[in-house]
Amino acid sequence: MSTASPLRTAEIIAVGSELLGTARLDTNSLLLTEQLASMGIEVLTKHVVGDHRATLAQVFREARARSDLIVFTGGLGPTDDDLTRDVVADVLGRAMDIDEAIVEKIRARFTRRGMRMPDVNRRQAQVPRGATVLDNPNGTAPGLLIDDDHRVVVLLPGPPREMKPMFEKLAAGALAARAGAERVYTASLFITGRSESDVEQTVQPIYSRWRDATPPIVTTILAAMGQIELHLSLRAADGAKGPAEVSRARDELARALGDDVYSTDGRMMPEVVGDLLRTGGYSFAAAESCTGGLLLSRLTDVPGSSDYVHGGIVAYDNDAKIAWLDVPRALIAQHGAVSEPVAIAMAEGIRALTGADVAVAITGIAGPGGGTPEKPVGTVVIAVLAPERAAYVRTYSFLGGRDMVKFQSTQAALDRVRRMIA
Amino acid sequence: MSTASPLRTAEIIAVGSELLGTARLDTNSLLLTEQLASMGIEVLTKHVVGDHRATLAQVFREARARSDLIVFTGGLGPTDDDLTRDVVADVLGRAMDIDEAIVEKIRARFTRRGMRMPDVNRRQAQVPRGATVLDNPNGTAPGLLIDDDHRVVVLLPGPPREMKPMFEKLAAGALAARAGAERVYTASLFITGRSESDVEQTVQPIYSRWRDATPPIVTTILAAMGQIELHLSLRAADGAKGPAEVSRARDELARALGDDVYSTDGRMMPEVVGDLLRTGGYSFAAAESCTGGLLLSRLTDVPGSSDYVHGGIVAYDNDAKIAWLDVPRALIAQHGAVSEPVAIAMAEGIRALTGADVAVAITGIAGPGGGTPEKPVGTVVIAVLAPERAAYVRTYSFLGGRDMVKFQSTQAALDRVRRMIA
Repeated sequence: MSTASPLRTAEIIAVGSELLGTARLDTNSLLLTEQLASMGIEVLTKHVVGDHRATLAQVFREARARSDLIVFTGGLGPTDDDLTRDVVADVLGRAMDIDEAIVEKIRARFTRRGMRMPDVNRRQAQVPRGATVLDNPNGTAPGLLIDDDHRVVVLLPGPPREMKPMFEKLAAGALAARAGAERVYTASLFITGRSESDVEQTVQPIYSRWRDATPPIVTTILAAMGQIELHLSLRAADGAKGPAEVSRARDELARALGDDVYSTDGRMMPEVVGDLLRTGGYSFAAAESCTGGLLLSRLTDVPGSSDYVHGGIVAYDNDAKIAWLDVPRALIAQHGAVSEPVAIAMAEGIRALTGADVAVAITGIAGPGGGTPEKPVGTVVIAVLAPERAAYVRTYSFLGGRDMVKFQSTQAALDRVRRMIA
Repeated sequence: MSTASPLRTAEIIAVGSELLGTARLDTNSLLLTEQLASMGIEVLTKHVVGDHRATLAQVFREARARSDLIVFTGGLGPTDDDLTRDVVADVLGRAMDIDEAIVEKIRARFTRRGMRMPDVNRRQAQVPRGATVLDNPNGTAPGLLIDDDHRVVVLLPGPPREMKPMFEKLAAGALAARAGAERVYTASLFITGRSESDVEQTVQPIYSRWRDATPPIVTTILAAMGQIELHLSLRAADGAKGPAEVSRARDELARALGDDVYSTDGRMMPEVVGDLLRTGGYSFAAAESCTGGLLLSRLTDVPGSSDYVHGGIVAYDNDAKIAWLDVPRALIAQHGAVSEPVAIAMAEGIRALTGADVAVAITGIAGPGGGTPEKPVGTVVIAVLAPERAAYVRTYSFLGGRDMVKFQSTQAALDRVRRMIA
């Protein structure tokens, strides 16, 4: 590769009509943006283009006039709809050759599966003159890298499991060699128990000082499902004090927000709670009503969670609560299934049944039906029992649809466990 | 609005640097694409642009040269980073006026919350000359619609709960009036129990006939998590035979694929199974091990599922299986927890405990740890008991990471219930 000026800006072009509909989401570009950013290459825009030759060519021409690096994903398949190779060669004015070594690789791939390579797959061996071929260990379509004056154009296949390892290799090799001397260092904080504006009010006086520093630290606040997130980023020379500086900034925000910060290292709630359970040697059980198993499912999404998750009961109707959890029928009759006494009884029931150290119960009205004026949809009661702590019980009011109410309930319950065993 | 030529092509520009990172996904454009498609307006490309004035102006200029309708989402907030209004007025060469009626609306919104409107919010009342103001019932930023020669430019706020109702009103009103006489009619089939290439082989001879028909029906095959999807679309004159034609095509594919088609009306698996349980008057219970509650959580994502979901047990460790589900300890010792005899015993245990009509048990190795040469990661045993049917038990081998194994296990279990009670 030539020793051109460093790559500073990039554009991503995702190709495929299916990416414009609701059926498929382009997740590749998120990964690309993050990895490029960490190399100090800023993604200016990303485009999703259907399988239209003229539109694809236009978008490429425009991106080429604007950015140092253009990354295509998709459109490298064997059919006539797969236009990326053709369009790139056209726009760059390069002839295309069939690379017989690639044909042989593709043929071998088919042979290994006891199949004969269809003729149409020869298209995937087309290489614009002067391009570097990028090996694809997980599929038939190889990638391509083209030096285009001071620019670099990269073509990668669309399926994430093919694209990802190819891009990572490229990022560590050819692209790293062409990136500038700067890197972008990032840090994040995940926060529960505060509103976005409350977080903003607390942290704004702090991060506003950094905005005009040299180099500046950029702080972004995002309201995500069940948590507020702070994302910090700092552009600085490679090997300089960047990492230390961004860590120091993160720690200053963490101190200002106190206990409400549940993670400063990217771990999500189920992992944070899981690590605390493991460290404390605690076993865990849950009795879930309105969340229908989501709490246990989220906890067991974490590899190794069998070390601390004993199990639990989804007691969706009243009979299940009475028969399995020993909740007195009279208690339900008196207070209703969604009430603090019943939540406590459910937590005690699951603890007695399992002998778990930490027991959680959730009962509520996820909606859209079942609400009353006193207990509207979104009313959820959470009880938590933990060693050497007073029993916790509280009634929450969550907003949003059924999914949102379920998720927020599990997040609040896990967060309470965190605060009680930390 | 002028009686210009109909809108046939569209482009979406989502504005906001946060949409380029991994923390936020642009979901607005999916909704827009689908609704525009149904009106016969084809979305050629969509763009995500950071908060950069020059890049945003360029992308807008290019879209304007290409498409009849340009829809912006985001960048209408009150701060200096919110560039959409400014950039659009600049590119179109229109002066901006402050609309005092909008200022009053925004002020009233703040007053209702007992707050004083910050001066900076006056920016949200800026209107490029000649634009139509679109009311935003859920936020401060109004939308804007601008007639630009034969083109239409629409500016909508970024938050989906603000954007969605505003766009729906627009789609039914001003945009419907400007759409052409054609509509796009769609249908879908969701398929389980077959590979993508197996589906392709079965349906290709059928849909290839339609491709060259007048008008053509376009068929797309997608491999989604736990299912293969066929999406049909047909562009035809409004009120013509379009809906009947696309339904007939869907039905022909459904006949060719038989029982493996689980939905032809957009309902997803938990809803399909839930409807069958309700119709049959069956109650449901599950004993989950490796899926950790995900099966019950998915079933209870459906509103009204309390009609048939009794509850269930997450028996994550062996003790839980023995104590709660009466699985004989010797059975586990002899065959292992992940085995067909244990799965059957778990299903019988949960049925005995709950008296449910339909009982499911899932036990397996979700990974990444716990695999052995005989039972590698992804080995999952599913047992289903249903009235008047022989007990079902089968050992599956699923590919992918922990999430994928969990999801596919629940999908296969629900699909088996469907086939047994349909």
